[in-house]
Amino acid sequence: MGLIVKKFGGTSVADIDRIRNVANRIKKTYDLGNNVVVILSAMAGVTDGLIDMAKQITDTPEKRELDVLLSTGEQTTAALLAITLKSMDYPAVSLLGHQAELFTDRTFGNARIVEIGATRIKNLIENHNIVIVAGFQGCDPEGNITTLGRGGSDTTAVAIAAALKADACEIYTDVDGIYTTDPNICKKAKKLVKISYDEMLEMASLGAKILQIRSVEFAKKYSVPIHVRSSFSEEEGTMVVNEDVDMESVVVSGVTCTKDEARITLKRVSDTPGVAAKVFTPIAEANILVDMIIQNTRSEGQTDLTFTVPKDCFNDALDIGKKVAEEIGAENVFGDENIAKVSVTGVGMRSHTGVASKMFAALANENINILMISTSEIRISCIVEEKYAEIAVRALHTAFEIDKI
Amino acid sequence: MGLIVKKFGGTSVADIDRIRNVANRIKKTYDLGNNVVVILSAMAGVTDGLIDMAKQITDTPEKRELDVLLSTGEQTTAALLAITLKSMDYPAVSLLGHQAELFTDRTFGNARIVEIGATRIKNLIENHNIVIVAGFQGCDPEGNITTLGRGGSDTTAVAIAAALKADACEIYTDVDGIYTTDPNICKKAKKLVKISYDEMLEMASLGAKILQIRSVEFAKKYSVPIHVRSSFSEEEGTMVVNEDVDMESVVVSGVTCTKDEARITLKRVSDTPGVAAKVFTPIAEANILVDMIIQNTRSEGQTDLTFTVPKDCFNDALDIGKKVAEEIGAENVFGDENIAKVSVTGVGMRSHTGVASKMFAALANENINILMISTSEIRISCIVEEKYAEIAVRALHTAFEIDKI
Repeated sequence: MGLIVKKFGGTSVADIDRIRNVANRIKKTYDLGNNVVVILSAMAGVTDGLIDMAKQITDTPEKRELDVLLSTGEQTTAALLAITLKSMDYPAVSLLGHQAELFTDRTFGNARIVEIGATRIKNLIENHNIVIVAGFQGCDPEGNITTLGRGGSDTTAVAIAAALKADACEIYTDVDGIYTTDPNICKKAKKLVKISYDEMLEMASLGAKILQIRSVEFAKKYSVPIHVRSSFSEEEGTMVVNEDVDMESVVVSGVTCTKDEARITLKRVSDTPGVAAKVFTPIAEANILVDMIIQNTRSEGQTDLTFTVPKDCFNDALDIGKKVAEEIGAENVFGDENIAKVSVTGVGMRSHTGVASKMFAALANENINILMISTSEIRISCIVEEKYAEIAVRALHTAFEIDKI
Repeated sequence: MGLIVKKFGGTSVADIDRIRNVANRIKKTYDLGNNVVVILSAMAGVTDGLIDMAKQITDTPEKRELDVLLSTGEQTTAALLAITLKSMDYPAVSLLGHQAELFTDRTFGNARIVEIGATRIKNLIENHNIVIVAGFQGCDPEGNITTLGRGGSDTTAVAIAAALKADACEIYTDVDGIYTTDPNICKKAKKLVKISYDEMLEMASLGAKILQIRSVEFAKKYSVPIHVRSSFSEEEGTMVVNEDVDMESVVVSGVTCTKDEARITLKRVSDTPGVAAKVFTPIAEANILVDMIIQNTRSEGQTDLTFTVPKDCFNDALDIGKKVAEEIGAENVFGDENIAKVSVTGVGMRSHTGVASKMFAALANENINILMISTSEIRISCIVEEKYAEIAVRALHTAFEIDKI
């Protein structure tokens, strides 16, 4: 018996039948004597549909009003689940962001949670209600509706679990856990029993789109253990938890791959102070997120500058690159959209050496050329030609013996 | 220059193009130097679609949660209109019921407005914002979402106009005003320049479904002049205002017709005290609204009891009638769904005699048998066979020379 926070994603509440399924899962937990708080996403596809509607009006819908529009998606599923549970004679109450006292800053479209009051949730729980909170939404100090960005319901769930000091935070989704790599690419992919917050953060940002990054940061900060599991089976999923000794013995626990980036190179840039700033200031001003940056020293006081940007910003970034190239007298600018980033992640890297060389050797064995390299404390990423992405993932999965975890 | 409240109904905001059209109308009024507050309904069909969704779960969705669900409809249109106006560089801000401080009682699904704070609306107006308020919704003292019942956005508009002491309250709809009768039935129907609150109340409850009754009551109480007009033309519509001398000179200003009712008769009921209570108590307990009740005295201490109920409650009412008939020893119970109620309305009736006799004569001239009669100070209604409804309307329209108003 305890307090369980359950979050169900868009595919788990995609229609009335699936909402019934969710209600039944909640019922089971509640019948065991637990208090239950449920966080819901919008029905799969609904948020995109609402964005499309706004885009019919203008390419740049005002952000405050877009949040008012988008928040209806979670409001709908929260009401429908409450109606379902009530029709089964369970005491359910839905709450919207402002009713759940989920206070955020004023960054419409990508707000950060500042504080959770949760007095109303606590009162409702004390009276043994099943509390259903619309995910993804909060309110700013003026009472305007804000949303927490893509996948924001994960963060709602973790934040509420932290505020309520819940015994468990279960994230129900359409996969049954976190895998060592994408099972669609590598048949030897294995489901992890547990993974550390830090590994999850690296993997989330690298394309394992199971949890919103911010929710993992939140979970790490408040030590909320997250249980990622399937809403379509009873099987245990993967625990996202604090690092422990077991984890450190595993050098690499995951291989990830993303094709979301494109590469831009400025050739023969004069190697003088201030050049990099001249390149990256206008790019930052255009709100383009640069991921990797590499500068190779060449002879004759010149250098090549290469960086990666999200694929959907590629054209904008290339235009800026060309303009800047003229100003700073670069010889040439070229771009490449056909790249992929493959990465190996593992907290064990902190205490093990030779991971990078093993990775490079594994790729070389497959005759895959490495275009760029970047590293963090617990991750090594290589940019390769897009067509080699899958081969690279499989090769790395085998090389690091992740199949045997 | 002044403060104009404009309310647009579901057909006026049925799609993005129509929302653009609404934005353009608002722009015109704003460009003339007026302050504008806009109240919106949900897109045509959306509320019904949401109700259907809830009914897929259960026939009796919990009312609090149904209100959470239904209120998303107005939230959506309010956001879309704000996005549209913002994209045209007009300062628009959408507000939901609780943000507009529209406080109601706790009657989910049919809440009454208790108080309007409107401080936020006033602040926004002072800064020359176009304020868009989601109609139909409010919040109760605990901050739960409530809705105001079918057509509730009309009431939102009038209530806000009253709270703001607006110079005008315009209700935009898919008809261009209030007609002396239904133009589909009688070609001679004429648009009224003005109509009194009382006449409108009688006509609204009789089937001219242009304004929610409660909104007219509200308008009367606070003397808010309502301008009912089309959102698809620039033409002036009909003013709903306080009674004036002009109006009294017209005896009958409107003929209405409704086919929403059915009739139930209990034959040969014993004519003793308490019988009527025995019949109507269980009907009231079943939440069935009885409209007309007629009791004819017969010989031998017996009486016939006839009453009308909404057609969709007919079967339930008939079942109750049969059960009661047995208890009180009535000879027979029969029902009739094929009836219509035709009515003439006019404040002039207060000071003119002979209206009833003229009405009965006009119907007799067409060989239409009157089944039941009921009257108010400014209205006379007759129940006739349904098949004669249209003939009756045309005959009355001519008899009272309404064509010549």
